[in-house]
Amino acid sequence: MINTDILIIGAGPTGLFAVFEAGLLKLKCHLIDALPQPGGQCSEIYPKKPIYDIPAFPEILAGDLVDNLMKQIEPFQPGFTLGERAETIEKQADGSFIVTTSKGTKHHAPIVAIAGGLGSFEPRKPPIATIASFEDKGVEYIIRDPELYRNKKVVIAGGGDSALDWSIFLTEVASEVTLIHRRNEFRGALDSVEKVQDLKDAGKLKLITPAEVIDIVGKDKVEGVSIKQGADVFNMVCNHFIPLFGLSPKLGPIADWGLEIEKNAIKVDNTLDYQTNIPGIYAIGDVNTYPGKLKLILCGFHEATLMCQSAYQRIFPDKRYVMKYTTVGGVEGFDGSKKEAPKAVVKSIN
Amino acid sequence: MINTDILIIGAGPTGLFAVFEAGLLKLKCHLIDALPQPGGQCSEIYPKKPIYDIPAFPEILAGDLVDNLMKQIEPFQPGFTLGERAETIEKQADGSFIVTTSKGTKHHAPIVAIAGGLGSFEPRKPPIATIASFEDKGVEYIIRDPELYRNKKVVIAGGGDSALDWSIFLTEVASEVTLIHRRNEFRGALDSVEKVQDLKDAGKLKLITPAEVIDIVGKDKVEGVSIKQGADVFNMVCNHFIPLFGLSPKLGPIADWGLEIEKNAIKVDNTLDYQTNIPGIYAIGDVNTYPGKLKLILCGFHEATLMCQSAYQRIFPDKRYVMKYTTVGGVEGFDGSKKEAPKAVVKSIN
Ligand SMILES: Cc1cc2nc3c(=O)[nH]c(=O)nc-3n(C[C@H](O)[C@H](O)[C@H](O)COP(=O)(O)OP(=O)(O)OC[C@H]3O[C@@H](n4cnc5c(N)ncnc54)[C@H](O)[C@@H]3O)c2cc1C
Ligand SMILES: Cc1cc2nc3c(=O)[nH]c(=O)nc-3n(C[C@H](O)[C@H](O)[C@H](O)COP(=O)(O)OP(=O)(O)OC[C@H]3O[C@@H](n4cnc5c(N)ncnc54)[C@H](O)[C@@H]3O)c2cc1C
Repeated sequence: MINTDILIIGAGPTGLFAVFEAGLLKLKCHLIDALPQPGGQCSEIYPKKPIYDIPAFPEILAGDLVDNLMKQIEPFQPGFTLGERAETIEKQADGSFIVTTSKGTKHHAPIVAIAGGLGSFEPRKPPIATIASFEDKGVEYIIRDPELYRNKKVVIAGGGDSALDWSIFLTEVASEVTLIHRRNEFRGALDSVEKVQDLKDAGKLKLITPAEVIDIVGKDKVEGVSIKQGADVFNMVCNHFIPLFGLSPKLGPIADWGLEIEKNAIKVDNTLDYQTNIPGIYAIGDVNTYPGKLKLILCGFHEATLMCQSAYQRIFPDKRYVMKYTTVGGVEGFDGSKKEAPKAVVKSIN
Repeated sequence: MINTDILIIGAGPTGLFAVFEAGLLKLKCHLIDALPQPGGQCSEIYPKKPIYDIPAFPEILAGDLVDNLMKQIEPFQPGFTLGERAETIEKQADGSFIVTTSKGTKHHAPIVAIAGGLGSFEPRKPPIATIASFEDKGVEYIIRDPELYRNKKVVIAGGGDSALDWSIFLTEVASEVTLIHRRNEFRGALDSVEKVQDLKDAGKLKLITPAEVIDIVGKDKVEGVSIKQGADVFNMVCNHFIPLFGLSPKLGPIADWGLEIEKNAIKVDNTLDYQTNIPGIYAIGDVNTYPGKLKLILCGFHEATLMCQSAYQRIFPDKRYVMKYTTVGGVEGFDGSKKEAPKAVVKSIN
C-alpha cells in the first residue's frame, strides 16, 4: 500500500504543479498516470510544439514546460505510479480513500485530486480479432523501454510522428525494423519523414506501403504478422508488433466513481476550492467543469493552488495556515534542500 | 482622449498578462499606472529577488518576470499612461467609461479592468511642512528620468535599496551627490552598501549620517536643504532633494468609485468572470477579493484570462468566441507579426 497526503490522478501539467503547491504546505504527493511518462497531453501529443500562452514564456515547447515543472517539483520528491490506470476508489471509515490501479497497485490518502485531463490515454488498436491475447506478449501500443527490442525483429504500424520517430530510433536498437502504413503518405515533422526516407534508401529500414497488418501469427507469443498489400497477403517473421495509431483519452473508470459528470467532465465548486460532490475528492485542470471553464494550462495551475489550500484545511482542520510568499519564506524541499532569496544586510558606512 | 477596448488600471503582472489574453481575442488594451515603470510590486519592491512559485520557473527574478511579460505582450502594442494615478470614473450613456488621471489624461473604453494590486504606489514623505509646495520644483519622490539631474547638485535621503542604488547611479550623472540617512546603518544588498562605501572613500559621494533633512530652502524652487545632525543644524546648497523613503500602496480614489469593498479589496464574482458590482468593471489580481482568494501572481494570470473572455462577450454580445489553443492557432500581433507552430508535412516516402 502506497501512503501519501494527496493522491493525484494524472501527471499532466496540472497534477505536476499541484505537487509544488502541496509541497509548500508540507504535504506529500503521489501521482498515478496511465502513460509511462509524466506530462499528460504536453508529453504525449505535442512535446515538440511551442505554446505561446504560458505566462512569462513568450514561447515554450510543451516538452520543455514539462521538464521545467519536473525540475520545480523535484525538491518535494513526489512518488509515481506510471503506466497504470486508476480503476476503483473506496472510501474508508475515517474518510480517507483507497485507489487501486489496473495492475492492482493500492494507494491510500486522505485527499484525492483528480487531474485526469481529457481522460486516461488509451491506445487506438487495429481491428485484429486476436490482438488482446498477444498484448504484452509481443504486441505493445506504447514503447516504454526501447531495450526490450534490442536485437529483435520489430514491425511498426502507423503513419504519424510516433510511428516515424520510433522507427528511426529503433533502427539503432533492433536487428530489423519494418514500418507498415496504409498509405504512401506520412504525416509528421519534415525532419522525421526525410530521416525515414534516408534510412529506407540506406537499407536500414524496410518500408511496406500501402499495406495493413491483418493478423498476428504465433502460439504463446508474437512470431510474425500477416500483411495485406493490394490483393496480396503474405506473412512476415517478427518478435514484436507495435501498432502506433495514437492514443485517445477516455474518462474511463473515473466516470463510475459517483462524481457529478457534465459534458464528459467532473463538476466542481469553483466558488471555493474545486472540490467535487464527494468531500475530499477534488478535480483540477482539463478534467473539471464549471461556469466559464477554459481548458488551459494556466487555469489548471490556479485551480491546483486553491485546491491545495483547501486540502490542507481538510487534513488539519485546527491549524490556521498563514501563506508566506516564496520570495520571503523560501522553498524547503523534503530532500533537505532549501532555496531562499539572499537576505538584505544591515551595515554601517563610515 | 485615449480610446481602447479594455482600459487596465495597474501595470503589475496581472494587468500586463491581461493585455496578452485580450490580444488573443483581438481586443486592444491601454494601461494606466501611478509608477513610472510597468511591473507593479515586482518592479517597485523586489525586482532583484527570486520568486519560486511561478509555474514552470523553478526560480525567476521578479524583474525578469516583468521583462518576460513585456516581451510576451509586445505584439499586442498596449498603450501606457505611466506616472499618473487613475482618479475618477464616469459612466457614459452607452455604458462605456471615461477614466481621468491625476494629470487630467482622459481614457475611454467599454471595459475597465482594475488590476491595481495593493493600490497605487504613493511615496512616503518626510514631515516637512512646506514640502508639497516644492514638489516637481526640485523635490521628487520617484526618479523618473535620471537626465533631469545631469550636472546638478542632488541630495538624496533614505537608508534602503532605492537610496543606495540611486546614489550610486547618480554619481555618474549629477555634479554632486549627497546621501543623508538618520542612522549609520544602511539596509540593502551587500553589493550596494559596499559600492556606496567605495564611492564615499573615493570622494565621489558625500555621506551625512546620522542626520535628517528638516527643511527646504528656496523661493520658487529648491535651492538647498536644512540638515540636522546631532545638535547641529546647517544648510546645504542643492538643486534637487530626493527623499527615497519607500512607496506604500493606497487603494486611493478607486475606493470611491461605488465598488463593493471588503478588507481594502474589491469584491468580485469569482463564480464566473471576476466582475465587480458595476457591470463592465472587472477587478483582477491582488486588488480583488472572493472566498478563498490568494494574493499570488499565478492567480492573477488565471483571473485575467477569464476576465478577458467575459469582456469579449460584453463587447460582442452576438459573436460566439471559439477558443483556439495558441499552439494550434498561433499568435497574431497587432503589429502584423505572427508566431505559429511549424506545421506537420504530409509527404510520401518511396
Ligand atoms: C495539440 C494541442 C495543443 C494545445 N495547446 C495549448 C496551448 O497553447 N495552451 C494551453 O494552455 N493549452 C493547450 N493545450 C491544452 C493543454 O495541453 C491541456 O490544457 C493540459 O494538458 C491539461 O493538463 P492536465 O494536467 O489538466 O491534463 P492532461 O495533460 O490531459 O493530463 C492528464 C493525465 O491524466 C492521466 N489520466 C487520466 N485518467 C487517468 C486514470 N484513470 N488513471 C491514470 N491516469 C489517468 C492521463 O493519462 C494524462 O496523462 C493543447 C492541447 C493539445 C492537444
Ligand atoms: C516582497 C514581496 C515578495 C513577494 N513574493 C511573491 C511570490 O513569491 N509569489 C507570488 O505569487 N507573489 C509574491 N508577491 C506578491 C506579488 O508581487 C503580487 O501578488 C503581484 O504583484 C500582484 O500583481 P498585480 O498586478 O495584481 O498588482 P501589483 O503588482 O500590486 O500592481 C498594481 C499596480 O497598480 C497600480 N495602481 C493601483 N491603483 C492605481 C491607480 N488608481 N492609478 C494608477 N495606478 C494604480 C500600482 O501603482 C501598481 O503598479 C510578493 C510581494 C512582495 C511585496
